[in-house]
Amino acid sequence: MVAHWDVIIIGAGTAGLAALREISKQTDNVLMINAGAYGTTCARVGCMPSKVLIEAARALHDRVRHEAFGIRGSEGLYADIPAVLRHVRELRDHFVSGTLKPTEALGERSISGQAKLLGPNTVEVEGEIYHTDRIIIATGSHPVVPEPWKALGERVLTTDSFFEQTSLPACVAVIGLGPLGLEMAQAMAFLGIKVFAFDKSSALAGLTDPTVTDTLREALEENFTIHTGADVKLTSHGDGVMVEAGDLTFEVDRVLAAVGRQPNIQNLGLENLGIELDDRGMPAFDPVTTQIADLPIFIVGDVNNHAPVLHEAADEGYIAAHNALADTPSDFPRRTPMGIVFIEPGVAFVGQRFADLDPSALIGEASFANQGRAVAAQRNQGLLRLYAREDAVLIGAEMCAPGAEHMVHLLGLAISEQLTVHQVLRMPFYHPVLEEGLRSALRELAKQFPYSEPDLAACGEFRIEALE
Amino acid sequence: MVAHWDVIIIGAGTAGLAALREISKQTDNVLMINAGAYGTTCARVGCMPSKVLIEAARALHDRVRHEAFGIRGSEGLYADIPAVLRHVRELRDHFVSGTLKPTEALGERSISGQAKLLGPNTVEVEGEIYHTDRIIIATGSHPVVPEPWKALGERVLTTDSFFEQTSLPACVAVIGLGPLGLEMAQAMAFLGIKVFAFDKSSALAGLTDPTVTDTLREALEENFTIHTGADVKLTSHGDGVMVEAGDLTFEVDRVLAAVGRQPNIQNLGLENLGIELDDRGMPAFDPVTTQIADLPIFIVGDVNNHAPVLHEAADEGYIAAHNALADTPSDFPRRTPMGIVFIEPGVAFVGQRFADLDPSALIGEASFANQGRAVAAQRNQGLLRLYAREDAVLIGAEMCAPGAEHMVHLLGLAISEQLTVHQVLRMPFYHPVLEEGLRSALRELAKQFPYSEPDLAACGEFRIEALE
Repeated sequence: MVAHWDVIIIGAGTAGLAALREISKQTDNVLMINAGAYGTTCARVGCMPSKVLIEAARALHDRVRHEAFGIRGSEGLYADIPAVLRHVRELRDHFVSGTLKPTEALGERSISGQAKLLGPNTVEVEGEIYHTDRIIIATGSHPVVPEPWKALGERVLTTDSFFEQTSLPACVAVIGLGPLGLEMAQAMAFLGIKVFAFDKSSALAGLTDPTVTDTLREALEENFTIHTGADVKLTSHGDGVMVEAGDLTFEVDRVLAAVGRQPNIQNLGLENLGIELDDRGMPAFDPVTTQIADLPIFIVGDVNNHAPVLHEAADEGYIAAHNALADTPSDFPRRTPMGIVFIEPGVAFVGQRFADLDPSALIGEASFANQGRAVAAQRNQGLLRLYAREDAVLIGAEMCAPGAEHMVHLLGLAISEQLTVHQVLRMPFYHPVLEEGLRSALRELAKQFPYSEPDLAACGEFRIEALE
Repeated sequence: MVAHWDVIIIGAGTAGLAALREISKQTDNVLMINAGAYGTTCARVGCMPSKVLIEAARALHDRVRHEAFGIRGSEGLYADIPAVLRHVRELRDHFVSGTLKPTEALGERSISGQAKLLGPNTVEVEGEIYHTDRIIIATGSHPVVPEPWKALGERVLTTDSFFEQTSLPACVAVIGLGPLGLEMAQAMAFLGIKVFAFDKSSALAGLTDPTVTDTLREALEENFTIHTGADVKLTSHGDGVMVEAGDLTFEVDRVLAAVGRQPNIQNLGLENLGIELDDRGMPAFDPVTTQIADLPIFIVGDVNNHAPVLHEAADEGYIAAHNALADTPSDFPRRTPMGIVFIEPGVAFVGQRFADLDPSALIGEASFANQGRAVAAQRNQGLLRLYAREDAVLIGAEMCAPGAEHMVHLLGLAISEQLTVHQVLRMPFYHPVLEEGLRSALRELAKQFPYSEPDLAACGEFRIEALE
């Protein structure tokens, strides 16, 4: 072992691996320390297993369209839940295996154990002391389980335990209706499980636009009931759980807790850095450098709680690596914020959120109830709302719509490039595609701005379902 | 009836309706003349009924993923073909009904009949003469059936007759493997019909990039056989048809002819305009004005054969209307060309085609064989190829990939705005999405250009399946 490291990375998740990738381009004198399971939150318990579950659930749920399409025999379809979960784990293991390779390749430069900071240049792991010029903290996060629920033991699942189940019971309560809770609630309902869904807040899926939220709620309630506005109390009830929400009570077999995640800072020794910590024990940091104060320490990925999604974690690992190897840290402007919730109709948001809009912002919206392609696919539910500045530059969107995960990328490019409504309307929109629904919202926005150019951006709508 | 019209529009299809919409904003003195069925090619026999058929066919074909997902009972699924076709016609009639309203609202300003030009300002319909300042020709196109095949009568279908069938036979030959032929071939194969597909050319789906074509062909041949490189000869054989292609012969019940469409210029009187016509009887016209020579006549939509797809037809109707009402015609720069073929994996192309690339163009590609989201969805087939200029500006793409119809829109915006590879790499790509496959191709391109900005456009790939 070397006596002094250039960089120590604590945490072998997505952010840590991104930092490792960049640092390894310049030096081999880097040490990776990881506590607990390897394999990234995404691959092990997050994006990937949930997406496999969701794809299987959607494949079964599509049977609701069969009768109208002229497809017969759907009444014999069912989910073999143990087989579904085995498939999820098989693919998960496949995905995880790829994420292990970078640390495996490190050999002795990879250590498994709990790292504790003793100061800005010193890390202790199981009694061993490691000296380093720079430290990158990338320890991730873990699901929150409220203290009173812990007495219910394995009857309260989180995503850490969910994908390890060999089967699922007939009736499940999902508590917490952010992106994760709704993805899991809908997937279970699509698979034929009775689902009751709860949240204290009436916000759904991280949306802030109430009209989009209303449209989403109506669509979701075709498959499970949603109860918002009351604190939820859980008590043991036979082999299951009694859920109390306001005046209502529900008997369920299991509960999925989806009430948020907490940064993994326990036992990390942040208190030894000589800097101020907030009441949750977190240090302040600069998102464009990822640096903590003026220390040689960078904090990246879910643990900093700045933008706990994979592509942002990867960006932060990249930023931290560059700044850890630089004499002075550089500012890296961050990407346009984006979120996707993998439910049907798809939820997505990008750029400025409705809740943060300036009162001068203009709004264009389009419903998918009569959108031609969505009608042809029997997926004609949804609402897309676009936000623009007074100079017609697009600044944000929230939507629940078929194809949302795709349209939000198109909007992500438009917003990143600060394009105007008219610039986007100059692009081609093929027919018949869901993106024509987006174009309808763009046209509604465009009408609110003076525009006299004789160009195709001004080519307007037919208001004929078959043609847009 | 008025003695002299400001504008006569010949043809009540998409291009004609777009022209009518714009002209009606300025004058009511417009006459619409339409021969044959009302309802637009798109709604009646084109995009819309084919898309409904395709959606139904995909809904059934998705059963191939069931076993792996853990869904049981798929062996009982089947297509009730008469019911599928009834559903297609029901939705088609719904779509068509919307397209009739603009002409119905014209009352006596709408005439059903064959229009014949007697000169640049005179139109005859069934013996009646109509005088006008301007004429917009929007007569559309019709499917080609080679003369020798006509003896086979109704055994040779086109899209004009296909959707009127009450059922479909067990075995169908599709001749012509452009966008339409492949959409119909795959849809029928997905519905359980035995399909043999033929084309003289080895090009498929309008692709010009041979590596994309190879990937597509391999994927398509999982569901039907493709025979290219030989002329096809059809002869009567019992109640069916014998198809000879080179040394091979095939007995089929019916043939779908998808060998192209011809402009509807028969009996239109173009020879009375005093201008030169080419050997197909077509006049030259200017795509940015839609004007024919310096006549007060504009030709728009499929009949001009310039870009026979709906959104271009709508654009041309818009352009023609503006120029018909103007003292002098203006140039309207046209949109970035785009094509989509609604098959699986999806085919799409945008901007410059591979076949037209300058030798200095750079290419980045990405396979979807190991793309994370595509793997999770069991849709991991495909190849995307991106083309850029030497200054890193994106200029085109061809692809066969899951989500192609969406990614091509994102690229359509990027190319329309002449963005560089690095500008597009600065946008957010969420995880896990198919667009990360597009990002992989962008990164392959980016490596071919010098780039030293310390920004997130340079944040590179993990080469880990779960993370991109």
